[in-house]
Amino acid sequence: MPSAFDLLKKNEKQYLEEMVELLKIPSISPGKPHPEAIIAAADWLEHRVKKAGLDNVRQLVIDDHNPIVFGEKRVSDELPTVLFYSHYDVMPPDPLDEWETPPFDPVIRDGRLYARGSADDKGQGLMQLFAVESFLNSGAQLPCNVLFCIEGEEEMGSDGLEKLLDREPDLLRADAVIISDSPFFHRDLPSITYSLRGIATAELFIEGPNRDLHSGNYGGAVANPVEMAARIVNDLKDRDGRITIPGFYDDVVSLEQDEREALAKLPLEEDEFFSSLDVPEGYGESGYTTLERIWARPSLEINGMGGGFLGDGNKTIVPSSAFIKISMRLVANQNPDKILQLLERHVNDVTPPGVRVCMEKGHTGSPFMTRPEGAFFDAISAAVKDVYGKEIAMIRDGASIPIVNSFAEKTGAQCLLFGVDVPEGNIHSPNEMLILDNFYKGMETLVRFIERL
Amino acid sequence: MPSAFDLLKKNEKQYLEEMVELLKIPSISPGKPHPEAIIAAADWLEHRVKKAGLDNVRQLVIDDHNPIVFGEKRVSDELPTVLFYSHYDVMPPDPLDEWETPPFDPVIRDGRLYARGSADDKGQGLMQLFAVESFLNSGAQLPCNVLFCIEGEEEMGSDGLEKLLDREPDLLRADAVIISDSPFFHRDLPSITYSLRGIATAELFIEGPNRDLHSGNYGGAVANPVEMAARIVNDLKDRDGRITIPGFYDDVVSLEQDEREALAKLPLEEDEFFSSLDVPEGYGESGYTTLERIWARPSLEINGMGGGFLGDGNKTIVPSSAFIKISMRLVANQNPDKILQLLERHVNDVTPPGVRVCMEKGHTGSPFMTRPEGAFFDAISAAVKDVYGKEIAMIRDGASIPIVNSFAEKTGAQCLLFGVDVPEGNIHSPNEMLILDNFYKGMETLVRFIERL
Repeated sequence: MPSAFDLLKKNEKQYLEEMVELLKIPSISPGKPHPEAIIAAADWLEHRVKKAGLDNVRQLVIDDHNPIVFGEKRVSDELPTVLFYSHYDVMPPDPLDEWETPPFDPVIRDGRLYARGSADDKGQGLMQLFAVESFLNSGAQLPCNVLFCIEGEEEMGSDGLEKLLDREPDLLRADAVIISDSPFFHRDLPSITYSLRGIATAELFIEGPNRDLHSGNYGGAVANPVEMAARIVNDLKDRDGRITIPGFYDDVVSLEQDEREALAKLPLEEDEFFSSLDVPEGYGESGYTTLERIWARPSLEINGMGGGFLGDGNKTIVPSSAFIKISMRLVANQNPDKILQLLERHVNDVTPPGVRVCMEKGHTGSPFMTRPEGAFFDAISAAVKDVYGKEIAMIRDGASIPIVNSFAEKTGAQCLLFGVDVPEGNIHSPNEMLILDNFYKGMETLVRFIERL
Repeated sequence: MPSAFDLLKKNEKQYLEEMVELLKIPSISPGKPHPEAIIAAADWLEHRVKKAGLDNVRQLVIDDHNPIVFGEKRVSDELPTVLFYSHYDVMPPDPLDEWETPPFDPVIRDGRLYARGSADDKGQGLMQLFAVESFLNSGAQLPCNVLFCIEGEEEMGSDGLEKLLDREPDLLRADAVIISDSPFFHRDLPSITYSLRGIATAELFIEGPNRDLHSGNYGGAVANPVEMAARIVNDLKDRDGRITIPGFYDDVVSLEQDEREALAKLPLEEDEFFSSLDVPEGYGESGYTTLERIWARPSLEINGMGGGFLGDGNKTIVPSSAFIKISMRLVANQNPDKILQLLERHVNDVTPPGVRVCMEKGHTGSPFMTRPEGAFFDAISAAVKDVYGKEIAMIRDGASIPIVNSFAEKTGAQCLLFGVDVPEGNIHSPNEMLILDNFYKGMETLVRFIERL
């Protein structure tokens, strides 16, 4: 019989074609819902997970949430259980005009597959699935029970999966969760991510006059909601880049000197990092390096802000309202709900005159931090060494995968974040892409991981 | 023969129908051009001005500007010349969903005609035209030469008409210009406007990273253009509502005590004024009343500001760019070009770190201030007293009609601003409307004005 590696090689073209099929489905989860596309992607995956040889494959719909595609291969209660996690929902593709090729029309250029979801996270999910399929089809005996959980709400907070973990903890109980939704430190440095930032989002609505007003007839005598929105934004940080919400930093786990030294050794080319973004310089909280700012310090970003006339030209009005979309990235041990309360209190305290401000809380996710060690970590480290011939790098990630913390807390599993995205992968941005070589080598690494258990 | 007043009465219904016809043409001038609608409105007016009995009726197209509809009735070089001015272009109707009935589908409710352009300024333009037509058709001898100038770029700065005044000063030379693009102080108080604010607009573009960035992977380490845009806005005014652009107030003509007293006597119900806007309180430059802030003090408004994700929900990005649309209303003797230079210098001085900012200058218009007296002012005052039985009110207006200043400076004419809009007319806003009784009485007033010359 062919080995799993032979099968991976043999099926390269087919796997790529199948990935393209899935990427064509615009399964956007935040913003205006595309329920048909969500359902189409879940159906496609249900079918594909079945075809891969897993048992009890089905879609779990928790209340009205997007379906979770589930499958399992249980070998023995004596063996450990490994859960493979990924998600099939994607971020909206705007701004569309910055894509070189359409986001849902996958195209390969220079060994990279360009499409929304190629890296985040459909491509990485299929990498897991195809690795397990190849192992199963090779006829080798699985050294572990395998579960698959591919959810459809990661980009909007994983609420359905959170509920599933609460309601049916046994269904997803595992000893290890392999999460493939994370990057290499750089394209040649495969990495394990041992810390993720949490998240808390909110939207502020600033209401002024009951209609847009002629700026000649009213300008100067009525508070301008956009101006007041800008004032609120300005009151969220000081000029040292520090967030000024009282109590915001109270629970932050400080960086220890040894970790600062370890982070400083990672090969980040700051000049290249910023020039690749076309920004004149870095900017952030005083007293911290770029990596520390992204990985180990909380941040607050205005994701979007609008008010008044947004079209071409001008319209000389005092706008009637404005809005501010905020997301905060949190680090251990900040509590997202507490942070949203602090934000709301602060916004009330700094509400400018002449307008009404209300805040709508968005989604939250706890930060995650672990110290990877033990059999599963050893297996993935060895697998990386087998395939890449180098030591795996130990990194943090500034992004949030709220469900990771829930897996850790609610199932007690060890969470191993091994993904094959790269920093230049443009996830959440136009021209998102996956390096195909990483996709193939990633499958190989996961097969080695299973072998080494 | 019937008198002009008989004719006005007889043609009431027809004049209304004709106004509806013109209002149906969406001749929007700022923003995305609607050249077909501009041309359709100019054609309609050319035809209608001809029908009214004027001579040499034609469209004047200066370079690529929107056509100016011109007509004249010259009686004698011995007689004074009165130029009637209005404009047929209108502001964009957004936000569309706040209109009770569609902006270009005129509807009468409670004696008010609702449509974009009903008050500003098509309705008032036709009021002038129908008054003159009725006078001509009555067979009475005109006591003055009459010119009509109906332009199509008032809402974007009247550049074409400015050029025409420079190139062919004789064509529009007049002793008086009757400008009907201004309001009553309130619906029962016909008014002459003796001062207008000028205007200067600009747009700031704040550029950060070359694409939207994932706020997890970059948040905290890269300057956020929307945050920096908010900082710039915040740096434009202090917390007393005073504009902080250095030199901004240098040329402002201060309010004298006697004028402050006169303004204070005008029947402004402040509580009602603000509660009709649903704002909790007034807000503006410390030390000035509401009327002073609107009429006699310069102002700076953010007309629109946007950046990042503006759709429903959230998208956790560091946006790549932001923009700020600014308009400033200026008072005598501020110079709009100088003010734009001061703004640009200030923006350069306060440009925050990590972003690039550039400013695009928009349109400008000089402030206007005059002291109405003499034969033409006496005639319009008497006409108002004839029709309304009360003294005309002397008011300022916070809005800008840049061409007024040019008429005054370039032709030497006395500019009389007599219009029949009302403060609740919602010009530049959804549900713009014209009180039909004002339209009819306004025509009567203009006929009396001609008679009294």
